[in-house]
Parts: sequence; structure tokens; C-alpha cells
Amino acid sequence: MRTQVAIIGGGPSGLMLGRLLEQAGVDAVIIERKSPDYVLGRIRAGVLEQGTIDLLDAAGVGARMHEEGLIHTGVDLAFDGEMLNINFDKLIGKHVMVYGQTEVTRDLMAARQRTGSKTIYEADDVAIHDFDGAKPRVTFTKDGVSHTLECDVIAGCDGYHGVCRASVPENAVTTFERVYPFGWLGVLVEQPPVAEELIYAHHARGFALCSMRSNTRSRYYVQVPGDEDVKNWSDERFWDELRARINPATAEALKTGPSIEKSVAPLRSFVAEPLRFGSLFLAGDAAHIVPPTGAKGLNLAMSDVKALAEALIERFIEGSAAGVDSYSATVLQRIWKAERFSWWMTSLLHTFPETGNFGRRIQRAEFDYLGGSVAAQQSLAENYVGLP
Amino acid sequence: MRTQVAIIGGGPSGLMLGRLLEQAGVDAVIIERKSPDYVLGRIRAGVLEQGTIDLLDAAGVGARMHEEGLIHTGVDLAFDGEMLNINFDKLIGKHVMVYGQTEVTRDLMAARQRTGSKTIYEADDVAIHDFDGAKPRVTFTKDGVSHTLECDVIAGCDGYHGVCRASVPENAVTTFERVYPFGWLGVLVEQPPVAEELIYAHHARGFALCSMRSNTRSRYYVQVPGDEDVKNWSDERFWDELRARINPATAEALKTGPSIEKSVAPLRSFVAEPLRFGSLFLAGDAAHIVPPTGAKGLNLAMSDVKALAEALIERFIEGSAAGVDSYSATVLQRIWKAERFSWWMTSLLHTFPETGNFGRRIQRAEFDYLGGSVAAQQSLAENYVGLP
Repeated sequence: MRTQVAIIGGGPSGLMLGRLLEQAGVDAVIIERKSPDYVLGRIRAGVLEQGTIDLLDAAGVGARMHEEGLIHTGVDLAFDGEMLNINFDKLIGKHVMVYGQTEVTRDLMAARQRTGSKTIYEADDVAIHDFDGAKPRVTFTKDGVSHTLECDVIAGCDGYHGVCRASVPENAVTTFERVYPFGWLGVLVEQPPVAEELIYAHHARGFALCSMRSNTRSRYYVQVPGDEDVKNWSDERFWDELRARINPATAEALKTGPSIEKSVAPLRSFVAEPLRFGSLFLAGDAAHIVPPTGAKGLNLAMSDVKALAEALIERFIEGSAAGVDSYSATVLQRIWKAERFSWWMTSLLHTFPETGNFGRRIQRAEFDYLGGSVAAQQSLAENYVGLP
Repeated sequence: MRTQVAIIGGGPSGLMLGRLLEQAGVDAVIIERKSPDYVLGRIRAGVLEQGTIDLLDAAGVGARMHEEGLIHTGVDLAFDGEMLNINFDKLIGKHVMVYGQTEVTRDLMAARQRTGSKTIYEADDVAIHDFDGAKPRVTFTKDGVSHTLECDVIAGCDGYHGVCRASVPENAVTTFERVYPFGWLGVLVEQPPVAEELIYAHHARGFALCSMRSNTRSRYYVQVPGDEDVKNWSDERFWDELRARINPATAEALKTGPSIEKSVAPLRSFVAEPLRFGSLFLAGDAAHIVPPTGAKGLNLAMSDVKALAEALIERFIEGSAAGVDSYSATVLQRIWKAERFSWWMTSLLHTFPETGNFGRRIQRAEFDYLGGSVAAQQSLAENYVGLP
């Protein structure tokens, strides 16, 4: 087997990269360790920046998003039950779109199925070779049979735990990391959301988030210790805890039900530098992780992949290496700004026992300052909807 | 002896409070542990917000400030030598005034001397009594003779180490504190400043600040460990270290000379709550400390004292307790916002080894974001010149 771009990972990053390349006439094969159903079963973020919306449209997979997605013109912040609305539309004339990452993945999968581009699911023992040399290739086994995929470029879209970054010699990569001492316990429920917009709540008991996937499906989170066992949380305990952390009127209006998914996700900030090693390029979670506060993960992956597709198209169609040479430095600028915002929003909204009563008052002062400053609200808004 | 308001502490807070009260016809006596020369010898900040400028004018002591003070329409930030100008005037139409705290103190002292209001310097063994009861009073010895000053109200303007806050029962006050793991080594020199505006520099070697007291007298600082002994720092070592932390062109232009003052100040954030205990009111450094980054200390003290003077005038002239009852809550709102800004600017500009390489990149990302965002620059500017 031979292709121009071997894409490792069939999540939204790999699928979008494949889609953009195939539109431009660059040949790519996607190799994914898991089944399509498994990929679709991963519950992730669901807030799309304008840049991501535009990219889905440019990729020709935006139709269902525009039909089913919810346009949000702002978010609510809360501090010990006191509410503060941040209206993106009024502040900076922009908005975001709520449309689940699962749905984005589904639309990209469907498009790929229509065009018949090659995706190898349930590929075992995926390994990448000679990406620093003349003959980059990917080996894997499928149904017990060994295969080799020769290629010009390997795109590592295989996430934080993937094989691509792990294959880079340790001394060739610098990593930057902060592991937060807590996680998010998330519950998905077949109920209309409690509010039209997302509510990010700081409470002395810990952070809580009221969000949604659609008008009939809601997603709620509470901050828990990082090593918390989901088995400790009955649905009832979850709803009680959530109600205790949001303002009484919202708690009153909350429509609960049996959880259809319940899991704990750790919170981590992580960046690897650089993002290119010879013929290997990292994108999305393989390159960086943001804590979910601020909803930057998927959007950042999409902007990586957009830049990578442009660079690869430049190389394979126009024969210029300029784009691939500048890829790492270019996307890292945007990555660090999103890392900063995600870190800031995480720092504002969660409880950090180690910063003591001074730290909590600084959080409160930040909330109060935000409430009274148009400049501070604009700064939050421009970061949340996505910096240019 | 009897007075309406016994003011403990003859620094700028106590002097300004005395001035505002005497203008309104409220009787006040200032009791200060040290001599006038000692008070004037304390080298402190020198950046006045518009509110402080207005207060000096209202107190009739602004003439020399307007003559000799330097209007600054912005500040420069630097990160590893890269410069970023924050132009307050263009961003929000405001400015600050550089005029040393020593000069403010001198002008207030001169005014008090002119009016002949009573100030007792070099008062030993100052103690406050019964501020929670019916007969508040202050005792002290002067030249070996014991005195008692009976009063209606005690104003604690005696700084962080003063007797007033220390006299409050521990269970009546809540304190919030962060001690930073570093201090500022400051040098005062008879040389024109290296730049027209202040330069706040983040460098891998640590923070540095280029500031001034006048057109002929400059003040420079470098971040050092909190327990650093000033004896380790010859003038030559100081200038070498400063040059290494600022951009080459600035280092080149730096005019050095023998230090006329050299000292290490620790950095601390501190707030006590509440600020009223019966007839005792705390103001200025007795109530709160900010790290000097952002130049909020004197300005915050002045806004405390303005509010306290208004409250006491309301009480003694108009006979209403509304102002004294709301004093603590009112000024604490402003205090926490200034604490937040000082903490933020300190966090951005100093090196914190404990946050690792991730923390330093977040600082860099914040600097880069500031460079590209009008909203972020406006937010910095409105805090630096003083929130309303």
C-alpha cells in the first residue's frame, strides 16, 4: 500500500484532515485503532468557534450543523450563585455554535463514506517508521494480517495517548504540562437543558457546568478529585451536588433523569514542541491538551488541521515546502493563546484548596471585576469565541 | 487631652486623613512613633492615580505635584527584552502622575505645620484602649512622660506592623495573605531615568523595573530571593544584573552612579477584614498590603482615607452613622480589585520556579495576547490608572 499522507487516528482531527486533503486532490489513508462505533461513543465537547463553523462549511459537512446546532450569543458565569451574563454578540458581535463533537465526527465519517476514501478501522499494533528518513511508513495488523503503508508524510492525529508523539525520540521534543488536582464528573441526560446558554459556576463546593448537546439532551459536570471513582456517584448524588453548586432558581428548574453516560475526565494542560519531526506532523490532542473549561480542545484541533492541510496541499499540489516548514511555529502561537485562556478560565472557576482563602478572594475579585468592566468582558468574549 | 479622632500613624494616610478632617472642621490629633525625618526617609512608590491627584488637589496640597510631577501617559512592558507599550491615553484617555510618596508626605506635613494642627512625633509605647467600648483612648509616653488621649474614634493609619490591627482580638479579624517567594532589591540614584516611562520587565533571570522619582532621580529594581541580604549587592553587581534583564538598547542607555539608597523589600499580598471594630477604623497598610507591581499601595491608602474622612465628617458634622457603618464593606470592594490587579501583574512579570516551564510559557502567552488585544490592553490600562 502507498499513499501521500498516512493519517493516524480517525477522530475529528484525522477525519477533517482527510476531508480537506481529498477535496484538494491529495491522497490520504486514515488508520484508526478502534471501530467507528467506538470513536462515535467518545463523549466530548460541543462548542464550536466561528473558525470551526467556517471550516465545516468549507469541508462541505456543515449542513446538519446549521440545521441542528444551537447558536449561543453568550455564556453565564456564576460565583456562589450570583450570575453574570457575558454577551458575545453585544460585546464583540460574534457567537458560538453548540453542536456535539460526536455529531461533527458523524458528519465527517458520512462524507468520507460517500467519497469512498480509504479508512482502515480496528488496525492493531499501529507503528510509524523512518519519519526522520527517506522512507516513512506505517505498519499495522488487521484481522491478524500484517500490512505496511508507505507514505510521504505521517499526520499524527491520534490523541494524547497515541503512538505518534510517543514514537519521537525523547530528546527531540519538549513538553510543557500542568496536571490539575481535580477532574470533571460528567453526566449526559435525555432532558432539555436547564438554561438556554451554558452556565459556568464557581462555588465553594467546587466548579459546576450546565451545558447541552441539543434542545433535548443535556450535559452537566461537577468538579471532583482527580482520582475520583465514578462508582461513588449515583445519579441522585450527582444531581444533589449539582443543585448545591448553582443558583437556587437554576437548581429549581433543573430537569434530571437517568444518566445515559457518566464518567470522570482528568484536567490537564499539555503542549509538545515542536509539532514537526521530519515527515511526521502532530495535530490536535496528540500535540496539546487543554482543560475543557473554555471549550477549546476541538476548536484548537480544527485550527491545527486546517493549517496542516494547507501546508500539505502547498507541498503536494504546488510543490512548496514553505507551509510545512512553518507549520509548527505558526500553530503553536495560537495553541499557547488557547492554553492560556483555558488555564485562566480553569483557574477562575475551580476551587484550589492549596491557594487558601487569599486565592479564593482573588477569584471573587476577578469575578467582580469582570462584572464591572467592559474591557474585561470583551477580553473573555474574544477568547471564548476564538482569537483570529 | 481629648480629640474627636485620634490618628495613629503620621505617614501619608494619617496625614491626609488629618488634612481632610481639619478642612471640614473635625478635630484630630496625629500620633507617630518616629520623627518627621524618619517618616520622610522611607522610600516608597511614586505613581499617583487620577483619584489620588484629585484628592491632593481637594486637600489643597497639589501645587508642587503639578509643578514637579511627571505625567505618564503609559508604561512599557518587556518580556525577555521584547517591548510592548501600553498607552493609557490612547486606550482609555487617562494618565498617571509620577511624584514620589516622600514628596506627597512632605507636602502634607508642610500643610499641617501651616495650620498648626497637633502632631505628636516620637511617641513611645503607643497603645489603644476600649475601642469596643464607651471610652476609646490612646496612651503613649513622650520624653518619658505618660499621656492619655481621649477620643471618639481611633483611625489606624499605622501600617502593616502597627499597633492598631494588632490590638484587635484575633477572632474578630480574618486575614488573607500571600507571601511571594521573592523581594525587590531597589536602588535610588541621582541620574536621569533611562526612559521617559516606566519599564516593567519580565526576564528569565527575574523581574526588573526601571522607574524614576523625577527627571534627575531614578529608581531601579531587580527581583531577588525574599531573604536576600542587601550586603551581597555591590552597586556594580546591581547594575550588571539590571542590564542583563532589560533589552540591549535600554541597557546601553542606562546611566548608573553610586546608589543613594539600596534596600530589599519583600513582596506580600495581605488583606484584613473587616476594617472597623467599634470605634477603631483601619486604613492603608494597616488594613492591606499589595506587592508594589502596579503601584497600588499609596493609591489604595488614599482611597481608603478619602472614604474614611467622608464617613467621619458625616458622623461628626452631620450626625449620621451611615458612612461609618458602610466604610468597611465599601472600601473592601475597591481593595480586592486592586489586590487582584497587583497579584496579576506580579504573577505575569516575576519568575516563579515552582510553576515550571509550563508556567513561564503561560506568562509569555499572556504577554503575546496583551500585545495583540485592545481589550486586554484596556483592561490593564483601566486597572493601572485606577478603577473608578
